[in-house]
Amino acid sequence: QRLRDLDIEIGVLPTGSMNAITDVEGVKVGHSSLIKGDSVRTGVTAILPHGGNIFQQKVPAAIYIGNGFGKLAGSSQVQELGNLETPIILTNTLNVTTAMDAVIKYTLNQDGNENVYSVNAVVGETNDGFLNDIRGQHLTNEDMLTAIENATTENTEEGNVGAGMGTVAFGFKGGVGTASRKLPESLGGYTLGVLVQSNFGGVLEIAGAPVGRELQQFSFSDRLMNNADGSCMIVVATDAPLDSRNLERLAKRAFLGIAKTGGIVSNGSGDYVIAFSTSEKVRVPYRVEGDTQSLEVVPNDLMSPLFMAAIEATEEAILNSLFMAETTKGHHGTIEALPMEKVLPVLREYGVLRD
Amino acid sequence: QRLRDLDIEIGVLPTGSMNAITDVEGVKVGHSSLIKGDSVRTGVTAILPHGGNIFQQKVPAAIYIGNGFGKLAGSSQVQELGNLETPIILTNTLNVTTAMDAVIKYTLNQDGNENVYSVNAVVGETNDGFLNDIRGQHLTNEDMLTAIENATTENTEEGNVGAGMGTVAFGFKGGVGTASRKLPESLGGYTLGVLVQSNFGGVLEIAGAPVGRELQQFSFSDRLMNNADGSCMIVVATDAPLDSRNLERLAKRAFLGIAKTGGIVSNGSGDYVIAFSTSEKVRVPYRVEGDTQSLEVVPNDLMSPLFMAAIEATEEAILNSLFMAETTKGHHGTIEALPMEKVLPVLREYGVLRD
Amino acid sequence: QRLRDLDIEIGVLPTGSMNAITDVEGVKVGHSSLIKGDSVRTGVTAILPHGGNIFQQKVPAAIYIGNGFGKLAGSSQVQELGNLETPIILTNTLNVTTAMDAVIKYTLNQDGNENVYSVNAVVGETNDGFLNDIRGQHLTNEDMLTAIENATTENTEEGNVGAGMGTVAFGFKGGVGTASRKLPESLGGYTLGVLVQSNFGGVLEIAGAPVGRELQQFSFSDRLMNNADGSCMIVVATDAPLDSRNLERLAKRAFLGIAKTGGIVSNGSGDYVIAFSTSEKVRVPYRVEGDTQSLEVVPNDLMSPLFMAAIEATEEAILNSLFMAETTKGHHGTIEALPMEKVLPVLREYGVLRD
Amino acid sequence: QRLRDLDIEIGVLPTGSMNAITDVEGVKVGHSSLIKGDSVRTGVTAILPHGGNIFQQKVPAAIYIGNGFGKLAGSSQVQELGNLETPIILTNTLNVTTAMDAVIKYTLNQDGNENVYSVNAVVGETNDGFLNDIRGQHLTNEDMLTAIENATTENTEEGNVGAGMGTVAFGFKGGVGTASRKLPESLGGYTLGVLVQSNFGGVLEIAGAPVGRELQQFSFSDRLMNNADGSCMIVVATDAPLDSRNLERLAKRAFLGIAKTGGIVSNGSGDYVIAFSTSEKVRVPYRVEGDTQSLEVVPNDLMSPLFMAAIEATEEAILNSLFMAETTKGHHGTIEALPMEKVLPVLREYGVLRD
Repeated sequence: QRLRDLDIEIGVLPTGSMNAITDVEGVKVGHSSLIKGDSVRTGVTAILPHGGNIFQQKVPAAIYIGNGFGKLAGSSQVQELGNLETPIILTNTLNVTTAMDAVIKYTLNQDGNENVYSVNAVVGETNDGFLNDIRGQHLTNEDMLTAIENATTENTEEGNVGAGMGTVAFGFKGGVGTASRKLPESLGGYTLGVLVQSNFGGVLEIAGAPVGRELQQFSFSDRLMNNADGSCMIVVATDAPLDSRNLERLAKRAFLGIAKTGGIVSNGSGDYVIAFSTSEKVRVPYRVEGDTQSLEVVPNDLMSPLFMAAIEATEEAILNSLFMAETTKGHHGTIEALPMEKVLPVLREYGVLRD
Repeated sequence: QRLRDLDIEIGVLPTGSMNAITDVEGVKVGHSSLIKGDSVRTGVTAILPHGGNIFQQKVPAAIYIGNGFGKLAGSSQVQELGNLETPIILTNTLNVTTAMDAVIKYTLNQDGNENVYSVNAVVGETNDGFLNDIRGQHLTNEDMLTAIENATTENTEEGNVGAGMGTVAFGFKGGVGTASRKLPESLGGYTLGVLVQSNFGGVLEIAGAPVGRELQQFSFSDRLMNNADGSCMIVVATDAPLDSRNLERLAKRAFLGIAKTGGIVSNGSGDYVIAFSTSEKVRVPYRVEGDTQSLEVVPNDLMSPLFMAAIEATEEAILNSLFMAETTKGHHGTIEALPMEKVLPVLREYGVLRD
Repeated sequence: QRLRDLDIEIGVLPTGSMNAITDVEGVKVGHSSLIKGDSVRTGVTAILPHGGNIFQQKVPAAIYIGNGFGKLAGSSQVQELGNLETPIILTNTLNVTTAMDAVIKYTLNQDGNENVYSVNAVVGETNDGFLNDIRGQHLTNEDMLTAIENATTENTEEGNVGAGMGTVAFGFKGGVGTASRKLPESLGGYTLGVLVQSNFGGVLEIAGAPVGRELQQFSFSDRLMNNADGSCMIVVATDAPLDSRNLERLAKRAFLGIAKTGGIVSNGSGDYVIAFSTSEKVRVPYRVEGDTQSLEVVPNDLMSPLFMAAIEATEEAILNSLFMAETTKGHHGTIEALPMEKVLPVLREYGVLRD
Repeated sequence: QRLRDLDIEIGVLPTGSMNAITDVEGVKVGHSSLIKGDSVRTGVTAILPHGGNIFQQKVPAAIYIGNGFGKLAGSSQVQELGNLETPIILTNTLNVTTAMDAVIKYTLNQDGNENVYSVNAVVGETNDGFLNDIRGQHLTNEDMLTAIENATTENTEEGNVGAGMGTVAFGFKGGVGTASRKLPESLGGYTLGVLVQSNFGGVLEIAGAPVGRELQQFSFSDRLMNNADGSCMIVVATDAPLDSRNLERLAKRAFLGIAKTGGIVSNGSGDYVIAFSTSEKVRVPYRVEGDTQSLEVVPNDLMSPLFMAAIEATEEAILNSLFMAETTKGHHGTIEALPMEKVLPVLREYGVLRD
């Protein structure tokens, strides 16, 4: 069950109709999951900013690095040029190169890209090495392409799926989660959606309730659990026409959403936010005609509601990833899903759930 | 009353003995407040990393810029050289130059600094222009020096004092707040303290309880309050021996503390974190003897507990600033203190307060 | 004499008609110099992006920090918001606060700014403490305003003037210098101008000729001159319609111009580049009407000729500052102008000058 | 022939004994070149900071991004943690993933790394797509490992070798180049070495002589050559004990070396500098024993001679890459080596060569 199914609300802004990143028109998400034997629990999630040729019709984008202990590929070019030219792939740490290779070949082989000699694949990752035999590098190019091919504008699966198959958050089973916000017309009317791959630690809070503390399951709570590492990949999409500078500022706000779930962005965490705008008013053609390009952008002064939306949607997406994940047995043992029988009483005690 | 006086706990780590930035040995804090007539409500807060000549015995430091819509002085040199060479001053936006001038003269005139030709004053600010006639630039060099002279290692005042005299947070009276954490010996045993000047917006949360939402007082909640601007200055001190790179990472975590109080780091907010280490193991003498300098530093792998401490102490310092502030009538009207008669019921409803 | 008066050419692009930053239409430069007794040799230089109310009609801008050992004010807000809202002032290190204060008061008091409560003064500096009694902080608010009032779109003075009155470069008298480039129409036809305040060290090169090495006057050349410190302030103006991201990239190229003169950007150097666009196509009104702002910008792909122009113009502006400066006796002694009787033979030997 | 074979000197500091990056004790360089048929002209260059297990004995490191239009892998983790844990590989743009994959497998399989689940491969690239059938992605994992296995502390080959096999600089054949500087004892006595993969454009200058202008072969010189794109990868090694902050500053100076050869760091250039220290005084063990780590570092004040060394060695390494490269016929045509019969007269005319 997602948070909203339990009538738990995060923040004050309304959600989009699916409460998913795919509420942002044109955005497509696809998964490919790999379960094999006792020890392979991993997968791939692909996010496409639009359904066309992304290399030819780039989108303005930014990457904010919350904590750089990670292997995200493609950050420097996105930061320099302010745009994204491929699907975004999320996967496990030791299959980043597989994903990059697949994205590069996918792009080189797309119709219209016959003369492309350089492709900036953007691939994020978290380490699923507890549940998954990560050193085996089990994912193939084909798995990556499958995720891209599976991509749809429909609602996206959450929990144990794709890049979230083997992840762990706050000591519980993590996974993929998503959420969205739709600003009122008076604040621009824009839609903003977030998708996360949750795999990090801290002291879990659910809509403000100190669940981790109450369950006594949190980082540094005893000698057996002296570690808060892991990572969180966050993808933010919006139809607001934003340039890369304001997309970077937006990405930074999504980072704040981690904090609200109790994440501490530990030393070993690779926390990255990739933000892009789908608006045609800021689309970046591979070849600009003429000497200048016309844009229409949201000015600085009107950004704050979008900032609020990014924080709220990120918090909710992370929580959805936990609520939708299921207990998983894998390579080094079993990770329990969020134990609802213990969590719900805490939520009631803290007024998050009412009868 | 502070949070702890109401038995409200933030996070899971123990506080220092005063639960203040001055729990970090050697750190001194001083205030100077200015109330004049109906419209002057402003002041100065000085934070000294140690009691000696700071220019001659610099401390490793870092500044993290959460949102740069602000006039903080001195950031580029701290970032480049990795150290701090003056007291830190917090004040109002239009008196930053007064503070800089005072710090420069203070440093030039200190014994031992006769041959100093260059001083990097670090001055932070928030805009108290609602309660204070800020365009009048009422603070003088003397006010700044008074704050420095008043600095003490004792517990610091909070609320309507010094740089917090005229500030507003979440639509309520903000101010100066402080808090600290003391890590268990098994996690290093270090002390970390935070002092904030709170002056920003969002949707107030107190220990996770959605107070702003329940009181229907938050940014963008209606046409009359369509603004979340303001700023938050955060100073983090620790006795852990950290180099500037890890101090910058620490500063970034303090930024997360804003999010936990419901702050959204709006477009117009100038949110800066200044972090320094007081440890003599990393002290930076003006003139190093010999070709190299010996240091002892906390390695990356052991940083996470300090990160957790920075998030918790920042959240609590911001909340203390609100709890300790008092209703203030000033230049453009009156700002109410947090209305305890309305807040406490919400805290009870959300399980933060128990009977 | 300027370089071009000696028929020395830098680079391959044509200059603007005055070969000055004021070739960029609308840009105004003004100086105010202070010579008093034996030991005061300092001054102020003001650069105005246009002749109107800059706070109300901001220009897109960026600041690149080459080496942050300096006190430049205003960098974080320019970087965050991507614009400049005041005249740029250059002066000496210990009068930065005077300049900031003057700019703030100037802006607060401008017609139309009656409701302004926050001003981001951008003030750069270099340390003229050898020729000038810098600890005396001799410049006043009035000196600052005089520089602003003196500002003109005419050709600017160079050498010992304004902020360059007391500076030293490569062991010779430095000062203010300027230069410009005009791109051919096929490359956009844009004008780009640079103004510098030169006060740094290294191994002087003039149009590639190793003058410092031949004269045996360079940093670390013997025990008496074991220092390369100082600073270089660089202001880049262009009428090309650039957003702040590409202005930052442009600023970074100006930094490369320092290297071509033999500068090494030493530890103690405060090297900052401020770049702005004067084009009305990217002008940033204080209050944007409507929900979005329309822009027209140069796309990434067409930036390279502007990059080349920035490098060339910076190199030439620095050299002009040296060629136009005059021997100066001041606080701690005398600094000789570039000794033409020794320099010209070197330039002939290295083919830079032909008969 | 290298520059020094022609008695051309760059700068004022003495070189190391081989005038190569391998003058820095312990540093190893290896190449693997691939020539196949008419259209495969590519290769790999590996740089190892020391001969041991780099993952277990990491070196402090920094990456400076001059222009981020490139696919360098591993930058965010190096920047966050301040260290390097693998060999550095340089190769062509579309084989970055091959190199990453090889480095990851190499590291996973090294003795002592049995429990490693996360590897940050640092791989740089430039685009050799004119001479090489880059879309064919012809390099294999084995080619990468061969370069690592070939690595030696002896002098390194230059020109058409390894990662420089198919590169083009200033319109001439580029390649691999190297150079070094040895500081006098009075300035620390440290050795600093640079290795480059040159593949970029601008207006070639050789020791200050305007060769590109004289030969009328430079970027934007006519409609046929309207492009300055390409990239430059720079690796800086030093035995000076530097922390990551000062290594980043050092890397930034190497970037200035590009400018001195006439490079303009065009829009399409991916210019990255990777700097590391080999000193055991700053070595970073995978697992630190105890709570703190003892270091000995060069203080800020003594960095400037190293900065000078980095600029000089980079300039010379780039020029060596051109001087050692040979005319190459490849995929899309032939690229001539620097035409010495035309270049030497220019160098004589400009006093760089004397009889």
